[in-house]
Amino acid sequence: MVNQSQACTKSDIAGASFSIHPMSDQFIEIIKGALKEVDTSKVHLKTDDITTTVRGKLVHVFDVTKAAFIHAAKTGEHVAFQATYSLGCPGDSQGEAYMDADETPLNSNDVKDIKQPVASKFSLYPLGGGDYMDVIYAQIEAMKKHVTVSPAHYSTRLDGEAVAIFDGLENVFQATVEGGSSHTVMTVSISANSPSHKGETKND
Amino acid sequence: MVNQSQACTKSDIAGASFSIHPMSDQFIEIIKGALKEVDTSKVHLKTDDITTTVRGKLVHVFDVTKAAFIHAAKTGEHVAFQATYSLGCPGDSQGEAYMDADETPLNSNDVKDIKQPVASKFSLYPLGGGDYMDVIYAQIEAMKKHVTVSPAHYSTRLDGEAVAIFDGLENVFQATVEGGSSHTVMTVSISANSPSHKGETKND
Repeated sequence: MVNQSQACTKSDIAGASFSIHPMSDQFIEIIKGALKEVDTSKVHLKTDDITTTVRGKLVHVFDVTKAAFIHAAKTGEHVAFQATYSLGCPGDSQGEAYMDADETPLNSNDVKDIKQPVASKFSLYPLGGGDYMDVIYAQIEAMKKHVTVSPAHYSTRLDGEAVAIFDGLENVFQATVEGGSSHTVMTVSISANSPSHKGETKND
Repeated sequence: MVNQSQACTKSDIAGASFSIHPMSDQFIEIIKGALKEVDTSKVHLKTDDITTTVRGKLVHVFDVTKAAFIHAAKTGEHVAFQATYSLGCPGDSQGEAYMDADETPLNSNDVKDIKQPVASKFSLYPLGGGDYMDVIYAQIEAMKKHVTVSPAHYSTRLDGEAVAIFDGLENVFQATVEGGSSHTVMTVSISANSPSHKGETKND
């Protein structure tokens, strides 16, 4: 797949390609331990040596990625999370069977009370037309009740609790799709327990 | 910056927001050590607690990110690299002074002979129109002389030497820009020295 914006077939299946990077010698145990705590039975899941791909209903894609990250971060180690969420293209069918799952997230209750402050950046790329700016802005405004929102190069920065940030990201993504974007891509970087949190260096 | 595809001002300044994640207790030393080996004098560089942003001419943005990753990976630790490369938008001016730099990359000679096999995935999002598909395909074909190219969900997978992969990514990005895309975004994930290299698990 050279280019995700060409030859798109409309599909309601959402997906994410994500990675969890614990900056620790125990990274294997942390990743495996976190994934073991996540109920992935409502998504198609495949892990290779670069990323893990999950596919299914949007609610479950966010539910699974949120839970995987939070279970890794709660170890207290410095953990970085990267994800690209996508809906609408490519319209291949792998994982379509999971679209029959109901809407009830399986992991939300397990993580909703875990306090985990994080710093994150996200970028939203509505590639498929639509009239979404008003809904995006409304969701960003709604997010400000729970997290700190600030501009960053090539992205929007969010600081706050991991649960609130993931929920806000899901709402923004959902609003973009509902606004008519037939192919929506969102990239997310999250950092937990960073020793350099709040620290900045620059060369100019 | 809520949305990179709106209100774009044409600019030739390229940039990348990237992270290097060594899965090691020595992550601080590895990151700082790698950055110390990179000559960043031809780019605007700013590091915060989530990502490092570099801005300047495209050739230097790739040169600096390639060198930073390779110097981290050559430690032999499992190192993951994530980057979003962008050109054309947002059209803000921070770092514009670095557009006066000449075209000679400062780090290319230092890393060109370092053997570092990696696995990577990239996605290209030409957001600004243009007629670029032929040039993209030509560059992908050219890449196949040096690296293994295969499809992956939401991305294209590349396996091979880090230097060849970075050079191929730069060529593809450059070709997209030259094909008339006024706003080009490329996301890249690279994994070096992974214990799970070649290993795959899936739940279906």
